[in-house]
Amino acid sequence: MKIFIAQQNYHVGNFEANLSRILDAVDAAKKAGGDLIVFSELCICGYPPRDFVEFDDFVERGLEAIDAVRRVANTIGVLVGCPSRNPKKEGKRLLNSAFLLHECEIKGVVHKTLLPTYDIFDEYRQFEPAYEWNVLAFKGKKLAVTICEDLWNLGDHPLYRICPMDELMKYGPDIMINLSASPFDYIHGDERKGILKRNVSKYGLPVVYCNTAGAQTDVVFDGGSIAMDCRGNVVKELPYFAEAMDYVETDDQGGFLQPTVCRAEDVADLRPLPASLEPERNIAAIYAALITGIRDYFGKMGFTKAVVASSGGIDSAVVLTLACHALGPANVQALLLPSQFSSDHSVNDAVKLSENLGNPYATIAISTIFDAFEKALEPVFTGLPFGVAEENLQSRIRGALVMATSNKFGSILLNTSNKSELATGYGTLYGDMAGGLSVIGDLYKVQVYALARYINHTFGAPIPQNILDKAPSAELRPNQKDSDSLPEYDELDAVLYRYIELRQGPKDIIAAGFPQPLVARILRLVNMNEYKRNQFCPIIRVSPKAFGAGRRMPIVGKYLG
Amino acid sequence: MKIFIAQQNYHVGNFEANLSRILDAVDAAKKAGGDLIVFSELCICGYPPRDFVEFDDFVERGLEAIDAVRRVANTIGVLVGCPSRNPKKEGKRLLNSAFLLHECEIKGVVHKTLLPTYDIFDEYRQFEPAYEWNVLAFKGKKLAVTICEDLWNLGDHPLYRICPMDELMKYGPDIMINLSASPFDYIHGDERKGILKRNVSKYGLPVVYCNTAGAQTDVVFDGGSIAMDCRGNVVKELPYFAEAMDYVETDDQGGFLQPTVCRAEDVADLRPLPASLEPERNIAAIYAALITGIRDYFGKMGFTKAVVASSGGIDSAVVLTLACHALGPANVQALLLPSQFSSDHSVNDAVKLSENLGNPYATIAISTIFDAFEKALEPVFTGLPFGVAEENLQSRIRGALVMATSNKFGSILLNTSNKSELATGYGTLYGDMAGGLSVIGDLYKVQVYALARYINHTFGAPIPQNILDKAPSAELRPNQKDSDSLPEYDELDAVLYRYIELRQGPKDIIAAGFPQPLVARILRLVNMNEYKRNQFCPIIRVSPKAFGAGRRMPIVGKYLG
Repeated sequence: MKIFIAQQNYHVGNFEANLSRILDAVDAAKKAGGDLIVFSELCICGYPPRDFVEFDDFVERGLEAIDAVRRVANTIGVLVGCPSRNPKKEGKRLLNSAFLLHECEIKGVVHKTLLPTYDIFDEYRQFEPAYEWNVLAFKGKKLAVTICEDLWNLGDHPLYRICPMDELMKYGPDIMINLSASPFDYIHGDERKGILKRNVSKYGLPVVYCNTAGAQTDVVFDGGSIAMDCRGNVVKELPYFAEAMDYVETDDQGGFLQPTVCRAEDVADLRPLPASLEPERNIAAIYAALITGIRDYFGKMGFTKAVVASSGGIDSAVVLTLACHALGPANVQALLLPSQFSSDHSVNDAVKLSENLGNPYATIAISTIFDAFEKALEPVFTGLPFGVAEENLQSRIRGALVMATSNKFGSILLNTSNKSELATGYGTLYGDMAGGLSVIGDLYKVQVYALARYINHTFGAPIPQNILDKAPSAELRPNQKDSDSLPEYDELDAVLYRYIELRQGPKDIIAAGFPQPLVARILRLVNMNEYKRNQFCPIIRVSPKAFGAGRRMPIVGKYLG
Repeated sequence: MKIFIAQQNYHVGNFEANLSRILDAVDAAKKAGGDLIVFSELCICGYPPRDFVEFDDFVERGLEAIDAVRRVANTIGVLVGCPSRNPKKEGKRLLNSAFLLHECEIKGVVHKTLLPTYDIFDEYRQFEPAYEWNVLAFKGKKLAVTICEDLWNLGDHPLYRICPMDELMKYGPDIMINLSASPFDYIHGDERKGILKRNVSKYGLPVVYCNTAGAQTDVVFDGGSIAMDCRGNVVKELPYFAEAMDYVETDDQGGFLQPTVCRAEDVADLRPLPASLEPERNIAAIYAALITGIRDYFGKMGFTKAVVASSGGIDSAVVLTLACHALGPANVQALLLPSQFSSDHSVNDAVKLSENLGNPYATIAISTIFDAFEKALEPVFTGLPFGVAEENLQSRIRGALVMATSNKFGSILLNTSNKSELATGYGTLYGDMAGGLSVIGDLYKVQVYALARYINHTFGAPIPQNILDKAPSAELRPNQKDSDSLPEYDELDAVLYRYIELRQGPKDIIAAGFPQPLVARILRLVNMNEYKRNQFCPIIRVSPKAFGAGRRMPIVGKYLG
C-alpha cells in the first residue's frame, strides 16, 4: 500500500485556504498512484482552534470542508482531521476526530482519547474523549488510527488511565497511523521519536506519523513526520520547519519497501528535561523555530514589514537579525532612539549592525520629548527626584515612537525582551515591553548569547563583536548596568530554569547549591511581576515552559511573593 | 446539629493569612457551641490557585495548614478545602479535596468529581476527578459532602457523564453539604439558588452551601451562602459580596430549627441566558461586584492609591466614581489631559465630576509633548498626512503621563475601556488601553450608561448630567464622534451580545433581524482585534462571558476576519 504523508502549514479558521491545500495534496497523491493519504490533526480548521469551536457555525464550516474532501476521495483513501459533533447526549459537545474518506464516502471516524490539558493545551475544555475504539478497514488492511497524544500513553503515562493502542490491539491491526499536531520545543523532537519507537516495540507494528508544520501565533509546529517499520527503523523522515509531502510503501511483514534512513538503535530514547539549563542545546533548531514563528505571524496576520527598536544591545541585535532573515532586510526598519544616558558605542554598534544586515535604519534622539514630558509633569511631580518614573518614561517614549512608526507604515513592532527580563519584571510596560510579537521572550539571556554566537558563526558574523562582549545595560540612568538590579545572568538563569521549567520550589533550588537569599529574591521577583507578563504580547515558544498560555499564574497571588 | 457556615475572603497562595482566618472562625464557632463548621472550596490556598499547584512546595504548604487546622478541631468538626496528592499512580497528580477534621484527626476526605473546564475554569488541567464516593460519618449522621460543580449535574447536565449525588444516595445520607467557590456574574446568582432547589427536590435532603467571598484579580466571588431545608425553603442566606459567619441547626425531619427566610415557591427557577442584552439587569449587583473587584485588587496587591485619566466622558466618569467609592476619594487622583481636540465641556465636566466626588485632580495639557513628538518623527514621517498614527500618539502620550504618575506616587492606573470598545478594537494599545485593572471592561456601553444612571440615582448624582447626555467621542481629531467609526451603540451592543455571550454565528444573528453588512463588519472587528485584547489588563468579570481567561481565541486566526 502506497501511503502519502502530507505535512502542511494551515491557518487556524481559514477553511478556504486549508481546504485548498488539502485538495491539492489529494490530487497530487492520486496522480502519483497513492492508495492512502494522511493529513495532520484538525487540519481542516488548523490547530489549535481554541474557543473558535464554541461557535457551531465554525464546526459546521469544518464539516462542509470534510464533505468537499469526501467528493474527491474516490480511488484514494484520505485520513483527515476535523472537529465533529458528539452524537451522545452526555459529555462535551465536540470530538477531536479523524475521518477516513474513500470511494466518495465516509468509511469511518475515530476520536481522540487522550486530550492534553496542560501547558499550552486545553483540549478537554472543548472535546469529549473517546470511550469506544475500533480499527478502520481499508483495502484489506486494518488501520489503527490514533490522534497525537493517543500514542503518548503506553500504560505508564502518569496523566492517563486509558491506553488507546491497547484497546485497538484487540482488533488485530496491521499498521498504526497517527495524525498529529505536535509543537516544537527544544527537547520535544527527541522525545517524539522515542515515543514512536516505544509504540513500535510494544505493539510490533509499523507506524506512519504525520505532523503539521508552521506557526500559529506563539506555537511552532516543526513537521518532521516519520514512518517507522515494526523493528523501529526510520524509513522516512520529512523535513523540519517546512511543508513537505512524501510517501512510503508497506510490505506484508510489518515493514516498508524502502531503505532504512535511520536504524532503530540510533533512534533517541526518551530523555527527561535536563537537570540544569544547557544554553547551547538545539540552538540551530531554535533558530529555525524563531524564523518560522516570525514569518508565519506576519504571513497569517497579513503583514510584510517590521519595526525594531535597535539599542545596540544583544537582545535587539539578535531580534533584528532574525527579523531580517525571516522577512528580508528591506522589510525591517530599525529605529535607534538614544537618550542622554546612551553611550556612543550603543549607537555605533546599532549602526554597524544595520549596515551589516543591510536593513534601513533611522535615528531619533528622545531628549527633547523627555524634556517636554518633564516640564508638563512638573506641577504634579513638584520637584520630586529622578527615579523609576523617569526611567520608565524614557522607555515609554521609545515605545510611543516605534508604535507611531508601526502605525504610520503598517508594520508590526517586534519586541526584544528576553525570558530573564520577563521573569524578573526587568522591563517597562508599554515601553520596551511593547510589541506585536515577542521573538526571544522564551530564551534566557544566556541562550540569547548562545543564539548570537550561532548566528555569527553560521551567517557571516552580522552582529558586531562588541555587542557580544560588553556588559548588558538598559542605559536609563548614568552608568547603569543590569547587574545593579539583577543577579549575574548565569546565576539568575540557572535559578529561573529550575523554578520555571522544572517547577522546583525554594527548598529544592537551595539544595542544588544556590544561596537562600538569592533564591528568595529571584522567586519573589518572578511572582511579583505576573501582572506585567499578563499584558505581554505572544511569545514564540521554544522551551517546554514558556510564559504565556502555557503558564497560568494568579496575579494577586501571594505565593513566594 | 449546629452547623456554622464560614463565608470568608481568601488570598490565593497566602497560606498564613488564610489559615489565620480559618483558625479564628473555628475558635469563634467552638465558643458558640458549634458541632460542625463548613468552609469553602480550596479555602486553604484560595481559589483559583491556577498553576501554583504545579509546585509540590505549594501543595505541601497547603497540607501543613490542614495539619494546623486538624490540631484545633477537637470537639468541633471542620470541613475545609485543600488540594491533595492523588495516591494512585494513574491520573493527574492532584485532587481537589475536602477534609473532615474532628477529634484532632482526619476523619475523612472527599474529592471533587465534576471539574469545570470551560470559560475561566481550568480544573481538569490540574486535578484528577473522583471515581469513588462515600458519605462521611459525623456525630451519628451521614454527610453527603460535595464540592461546588458536583451539585451542578442532576443527571441532565450536558457536560458530564457522572452524577455524584446519585452515587452518594446509595449510602443513605442525612444532609448535603457543599463547599463552593462559585463566582459572580449577573445571571449566576439566580442560577445557583435554582440548582440547590433542584437538588433538594430530587434527593429530599436539606443542603448547606458555603461559598467564598471577595475577588481574586478578575474573578469576583459573591458569597450568598445558603441553607435550604428538604422542602426547598431557604432558612439562612448569608450576605452578598461580604465576609460573614452564621449557623443553622438541623432537626431530624430534613429541616432546620429555624424560621423560613424565603419559601420554596419564591426561589428562582433555572433561567437561561437572556436572548438579548438587558442593560439594566442586576445593575446593583454589578455595582457591588465592581467595588469588590477594585477593593480586593488593591488590597491583595498591597496598594491603596489609584490614578484615573478623566476625560469628561461617560466611561472615565463611571470608573472614577467607582474608584472613589471603593478606595475613598482622597486615594484617587484624576488626571485631566486635554489636547487641542478636546472640547471645553470635556474639561469642565471632568472638573465638575471631581468636585462632586471630592477627589484630587490635576490638568496637564498634552499639546507641547505632542509637538515634540511630531518634530522628532518628522525625518521618518517625511510629511505624511495626519492619521491613525497621530491619533494613537495622543492616546499614548496620555498613557505615558498617567503611568509616570502611577510610578511616581505608587498608585495603580485604573483602565476605563468598556466591553464594546474592547470588542471592536476601538482603543489604543499602551494608550487608553493601559492600566493595571480594567473596571468596566466587561460592560457594554449601554450597560455603562445604565450603571451611571444607577449611581446617580443611588448616590446623589455625582456624575454631571451632561456626561450622560452628550454623544460619545474619543476627541482625537476635530469633531470626532464614536459613531464615525462604529455603529450606534445600541445596535453594536445587541450584535456583540449575541456573538460573545450567546456564541451565535453570523447566520443566527442575521436571522434575528440584523442587516448582513452590519453583522459582518462587527464580527470582523471582534476577530481582527484579538491581538489587542491579548495585551490587555485583567477585567473585573461580571458577565457570563468576559474577555480574558474565559475567552481564548487564536490571534492569527482567520475565522470571520
